[in-house]
Amino acid sequence: MDNALEFYFDFSSPYGYLASEKIDALAQRFGRQVKWRPILLGVVFRETGAVPLTEAPLKGEYSLRDFARSARYLGVPYTHPARFPLATQHAARTYYWLHEKDCAMARAFAHATFRSFYIEGCDISDLTVVLDLACRQGADYNALSEALAGPSVKERLKGECEAAIRKGVFGSPYIIVDGEPFFGVDRLPQIERWLEKGGF
Amino acid sequence: MDNALEFYFDFSSPYGYLASEKIDALAQRFGRQVKWRPILLGVVFRETGAVPLTEAPLKGEYSLRDFARSARYLGVPYTHPARFPLATQHAARTYYWLHEKDCAMARAFAHATFRSFYIEGCDISDLTVVLDLACRQGADYNALSEALAGPSVKERLKGECEAAIRKGVFGSPYIIVDGEPFFGVDRLPQIERWLEKGGF
Repeated sequence: MDNALEFYFDFSSPYGYLASEKIDALAQRFGRQVKWRPILLGVVFRETGAVPLTEAPLKGEYSLRDFARSARYLGVPYTHPARFPLATQHAARTYYWLHEKDCAMARAFAHATFRSFYIEGCDISDLTVVLDLACRQGADYNALSEALAGPSVKERLKGECEAAIRKGVFGSPYIIVDGEPFFGVDRLPQIERWLEKGGF
Repeated sequence: MDNALEFYFDFSSPYGYLASEKIDALAQRFGRQVKWRPILLGVVFRETGAVPLTEAPLKGEYSLRDFARSARYLGVPYTHPARFPLATQHAARTYYWLHEKDCAMARAFAHATFRSFYIEGCDISDLTVVLDLACRQGADYNALSEALAGPSVKERLKGECEAAIRKGVFGSPYIIVDGEPFFGVDRLPQIERWLEKGGF
């Protein structure tokens, strides 16, 4: 895992979702693995003063069009959720809790969460929705409920967000390859070139 | 020219420069022409509240790296100018003045201006630099000097900026194809697909 790609994202980020459907296969073609790192853009934006894309004047209207068109371009199913953006701390904390037990289960949970939000329109800010998604991947309901009510998973996510900001993460997706940062799903072709050539 | 692409940019925009080196050849492959429309991002940002990319916390540092890497990716020569960003009203007004007389001369002036800034590091906010660039394309020094001192070219550029904002332009490059808006040089592959398929 030493040369693994680091993939930072917020579960509420459309471009993060699009990247999540592509990044593993891209890395695998070059014998690389990917460390998934959910973060909270709300925490990052408090640091940077940025606003959610869809709330920015003019850019907001454009971005709704661009989310859907970029999904079509990449061949990824996408329906813009009625409730958007939404809080993703339950989902992110659940991811890290699962990850400590079973990496594959955490990855499956992440895909299921993104897809339930961006394909089925589920409210992934709702704790019961998140618990259900986790249990369908095999998580223990009682143990996870208890963990999400306690301080440990909160501290873990807080620490991950702070570490991400220290690394320069300012948005989603933000992908680090061999120390080189790439922001946006539209940088996947540059990441591919980087992996092919070992930098460019 | 009815189905021409509309290419909005600021002469101080690195991604606008990169797009300027690619957009005509891309359009030409599909039998399309391109209308170049320099604008002032400062005027647009007053409307939207946005800040220049390089001044945004965290994103600023990243963007300097991304300008140069995106240029390498696209095979376009690029040296980040020492003085950046800078005011481009003289360059934009000169463009429109030339365009009323000779479209090809205006296009050549635009390329020369971008390249002098992003390859040679010239100060294209300086009126004498702009006059020199225009005269090297064949402009009449006295007529242009007089025009730039008068109200007509100022009104023209003001009108172009206002019209751009009404069309939703919030950054550079912003390219409209068949009514569909594309923001960023990283959208060129989507524009290519659009031109190939007549939409997607």
